[in-house]
Amino acid sequence: MRSNLLDRVNSPDDIKKLDVHSLELLAQEIRNHIISIVEDNGGHLGANLGVVELTLALHSVLSTPKDKIIWDVGHQCYTHKLITGRKDRFHTLRQWQGISGFPLPSESEHDHYGVGHSSTSISVAAGMAIARDLNGEKHKIVAVIGDGALTGGMAFEALCHIGSLGKDLMVILNDNEMSITKNVGALSDYLGRIRSDSTLYKARADLSVLLRKIPLVGRPLAQVAHKCKIALKNMLPGQLFEDLGFAYLGPFDGHNIARLQRAIKSGLERGGPVLLHVYTQKGKGHAQAEEDPRRYHGVGPLKVVSGGEKKVQSFSEVFGTALTALGERDPRIVAITAAMPDGTGLNIFAKRFPDRFFDVGIAEQHALTLAGGMAKEGLRPVVAIYSTFLQRGYDQIIHDLALQNLPVVIGVDRAGVVGDDGPTHHGVFDISFLRAIPNMTVVAPRTGSELEAMLAWALEQPNPVAIRYPRGGASVEQPQPFFDPAQPISASVLKPGRDAVVFAVGPMADVALEAARRLEPEFSCAVVNVRSLKPLDALELKNLAKGKKCILTLEDHVLAGGFGSSILELFREERGVNIECLGYPDAFIPQGSISRLHEEYGLSAAHVEAALRKALSGRPLKAVARKDM
Amino acid sequence: MRSNLLDRVNSPDDIKKLDVHSLELLAQEIRNHIISIVEDNGGHLGANLGVVELTLALHSVLSTPKDKIIWDVGHQCYTHKLITGRKDRFHTLRQWQGISGFPLPSESEHDHYGVGHSSTSISVAAGMAIARDLNGEKHKIVAVIGDGALTGGMAFEALCHIGSLGKDLMVILNDNEMSITKNVGALSDYLGRIRSDSTLYKARADLSVLLRKIPLVGRPLAQVAHKCKIALKNMLPGQLFEDLGFAYLGPFDGHNIARLQRAIKSGLERGGPVLLHVYTQKGKGHAQAEEDPRRYHGVGPLKVVSGGEKKVQSFSEVFGTALTALGERDPRIVAITAAMPDGTGLNIFAKRFPDRFFDVGIAEQHALTLAGGMAKEGLRPVVAIYSTFLQRGYDQIIHDLALQNLPVVIGVDRAGVVGDDGPTHHGVFDISFLRAIPNMTVVAPRTGSELEAMLAWALEQPNPVAIRYPRGGASVEQPQPFFDPAQPISASVLKPGRDAVVFAVGPMADVALEAARRLEPEFSCAVVNVRSLKPLDALELKNLAKGKKCILTLEDHVLAGGFGSSILELFREERGVNIECLGYPDAFIPQGSISRLHEEYGLSAAHVEAALRKALSGRPLKAVARKDM
Repeated sequence: MRSNLLDRVNSPDDIKKLDVHSLELLAQEIRNHIISIVEDNGGHLGANLGVVELTLALHSVLSTPKDKIIWDVGHQCYTHKLITGRKDRFHTLRQWQGISGFPLPSESEHDHYGVGHSSTSISVAAGMAIARDLNGEKHKIVAVIGDGALTGGMAFEALCHIGSLGKDLMVILNDNEMSITKNVGALSDYLGRIRSDSTLYKARADLSVLLRKIPLVGRPLAQVAHKCKIALKNMLPGQLFEDLGFAYLGPFDGHNIARLQRAIKSGLERGGPVLLHVYTQKGKGHAQAEEDPRRYHGVGPLKVVSGGEKKVQSFSEVFGTALTALGERDPRIVAITAAMPDGTGLNIFAKRFPDRFFDVGIAEQHALTLAGGMAKEGLRPVVAIYSTFLQRGYDQIIHDLALQNLPVVIGVDRAGVVGDDGPTHHGVFDISFLRAIPNMTVVAPRTGSELEAMLAWALEQPNPVAIRYPRGGASVEQPQPFFDPAQPISASVLKPGRDAVVFAVGPMADVALEAARRLEPEFSCAVVNVRSLKPLDALELKNLAKGKKCILTLEDHVLAGGFGSSILELFREERGVNIECLGYPDAFIPQGSISRLHEEYGLSAAHVEAALRKALSGRPLKAVARKDM
Repeated sequence: MRSNLLDRVNSPDDIKKLDVHSLELLAQEIRNHIISIVEDNGGHLGANLGVVELTLALHSVLSTPKDKIIWDVGHQCYTHKLITGRKDRFHTLRQWQGISGFPLPSESEHDHYGVGHSSTSISVAAGMAIARDLNGEKHKIVAVIGDGALTGGMAFEALCHIGSLGKDLMVILNDNEMSITKNVGALSDYLGRIRSDSTLYKARADLSVLLRKIPLVGRPLAQVAHKCKIALKNMLPGQLFEDLGFAYLGPFDGHNIARLQRAIKSGLERGGPVLLHVYTQKGKGHAQAEEDPRRYHGVGPLKVVSGGEKKVQSFSEVFGTALTALGERDPRIVAITAAMPDGTGLNIFAKRFPDRFFDVGIAEQHALTLAGGMAKEGLRPVVAIYSTFLQRGYDQIIHDLALQNLPVVIGVDRAGVVGDDGPTHHGVFDISFLRAIPNMTVVAPRTGSELEAMLAWALEQPNPVAIRYPRGGASVEQPQPFFDPAQPISASVLKPGRDAVVFAVGPMADVALEAARRLEPEFSCAVVNVRSLKPLDALELKNLAKGKKCILTLEDHVLAGGFGSSILELFREERGVNIECLGYPDAFIPQGSISRLHEEYGLSAAHVEAALRKALSGRPLKAVARKDM
């Protein structure tokens, strides 16, 4: 039966007109639609298929935009987008100038807050609840957070605050036992214990039996208490949340729309801080995603996933493979991830050395300081975190690693723009925020081979070292580079040249090479892979600049305080040098493919060529940013 | 009786030789000694007086440095320092090149990790426990964390991880109901409920009575369960920690040495993750500090506190006063602090507008995103956080405020070096890490009057604005400045000049003025208070630089990526301009008075004078940093 219910849903009001049976049919239509779009565009399949019913139940009970739904992380918002007026543009999902894969207030009044990182929803909702009450308004506010996101310390901070304030606010714990991979940690274990008590009625009956069996006199009370405790744990799940000031409701089946509607209504009527615990299945309705939710968490276009064969290793895979090889030789090496074993390539290390691998959950702060404690006691910890998430552990890098000057290696994965995930995920601030920190070394490989060599080198240094590398494929170079651990990493001249020199960060050096080749024989431009961003290979860079008409810096990073800025600092005293800097302007970069973004923001070979040509022909040049194009 | 026990204690081994009675006498001696030193040097009085017995008990049971004690925040380490070989130098506490007020591994092998910020100890201890087990070692590891520090989300992340791993590790919860001021939040409420059940025996007896009263048939079970639950809560405190995988022991009297010794031994023998809950009194043994722990948390030399009268308002007081005045006119204004109402001056606002003031506890991440949620719903939140602690919320500033482009005002208090608290507390990275963020505005007042005007201006802006101001007294200027909300804040020429121009940040402009005056009439130097650090008042700064032989930048901040760096970016295309930059070198700055540090690091008027003289006499000038002096 094709009911084409979705065709008739243009706003959440239309949801309210549907009975439960129709909502169930609509859920199936939406599921098929999401699968079809993700097959074409890529996206977060598992999370979205898991919350179809929950989203429909929420919109059937609440009235957005007056009421607010705050999605944590936001990668589960596809159903929400489809029923809030965006189904006609939904095929542009995650594409340049298309629909965002995350909530975006500029897209719709039903998206109440922008998001992409984890564990922020309760804080946002708390702020909105306080504002509502101060403004004398009455609407409902619901934060929807996964059990993975709840492991982030920030969510705990928010729970404690709102639980204590007693504000009217519902937190829906969307418990699917997964963040990106299988959840870890004591909170997850705790939720698992609730989960395992599948029949509350049975537990209650047990207690009843137990209480009847207790002899009323002459029995050691501690023992009684112990049994009571166990029984009550079964009967009163969620006590931990009650202890933090929340009324706990649940657990409920997150795919039963009628049950969800009743539970949400009942929680909202109750008022105050309420935690509603629902179970959902990641990837629900897609056989492969149900089977392997880890693989289908965030995917590229599925047609490629199922059909294609990867030709080059990603930087992440090179990192994980190289670390595993180094781990064979040095038992002090341990690896830490914050819920991203697959994305960072550390799954390779984890498989080989399960006892030396630590997934701390979505907890970047703890991950970094944990590494500090390990390093202090003689281990050689390697923490791999995406650049954008490393922002979560900034104080820990300063206070717990750099100030202590401990040998921790940070793999700064996904540095630079990341493509379709957009502005919440671009890693374009790390050079600025890391190079300000004393004792830090920051290096950037151009190739996978260089990444291997830099990792080996970094593990021999006495201080914290960050290695930044982009999302995507890593090229191989021969011969395999080697860096002497006793020396800082030097700059590498990829191509000599007479007229100008390009100082480039990581694979941007390849873009510069292409530009330099295009300029031959008219202009002769040297291309330098700087490799060490902090400290800079100062003498060599100054030598290379000698006699050149222009220095051009090239980075997949913001210009403010970035690599180009450090070159300006280095050449401060060399007056009269013409320095041009290419990088991102002072604006958040939207979503789009990496190549498209490089094109739009003046980081393509054609732009570098144009910039060099302008500089060398003597005319003044402005930074080539989008606005100037 | 003067036993002078402390004279005979040169290492923790000497502690182990003392019986409980002698330890009690020693505790009193240590208390007097701490009070005497803090009276002279200032320091964290309350926290240190609270843990004298706990520290002695720990050292009598453990054998450091083999066993490890990790102090959270670290401001309670004075007893520990006195009995680990530093009593003879203890009079240099918090002074230039003296004993640090915080644990410092370079000072002693008994200080296992450096610290100054909150909530890191469990992560450090967890890392050390993992390292111990991988290294096949057997020693004990104890983290000592206050109930305030436990509210930091990072501590929760660590609890969840270690609770799940099951590592042998003791966390001592030093519960004094205070962080810097009275603790807040649901966790604090929870601990309060444990605390209020002062007699476990009574609760057990109650349960016994209750159980006897339960009719065995015909009674609604839910009601039974409810009563059981309450009773068991009394009998089994700490279930929340048990839920997270810890064995909970306590609560114990933290001033009873014999009881503490038994409890610590028993917990260590048990093995696995153990949480030992002890009650202590902040300021114990000092009548005024017991009475007003908030005032005696961290103090300057007490002789001044009790005798002196403050002559100028601090920037923090100006901030709090000005915000309160603005709050009278605009009901949308709300204020948020992360456990620092007094230090940030927000206590003034809190007193006037208790319903519009929010102390979230030690939870900077939540504080910032909470503000975002409020701003999204029409409030005008102002968050005041010390520069050094703002590092904890870096991702929240980027992801939850700037990317959303919400009107949140951040008061960046204690920006620049802070003096005696030393490197963990200096706020010398904020310009670098904030100016990289799109949509952010960053301004810096020179005077208290300017701070007032900037705060009023910031509250009218549509985007996030950070106002950075230093620790210490704020001067007053007439007439009171006013900034047009419709315009960016302009640079202010404090003194015109012909030969050179100094671009200075905040009160550093006064240092530049003094230097410029000293150079008259030999050289004529203009002095500019830049006021707006991001965006820069580009046209005006370029105009002011025209025809000058030298631009000198002056900031109480690191040079890497800082203000001087932004001036280099601004003048990138103006070739041939001589730009000199004064600020901190690429090194952590030690403790010492602010004036001493400015002197040591080349930021005094004499240094600025020398730098200008060098630049104007044509000789090349290097950045005047300590190494070059």
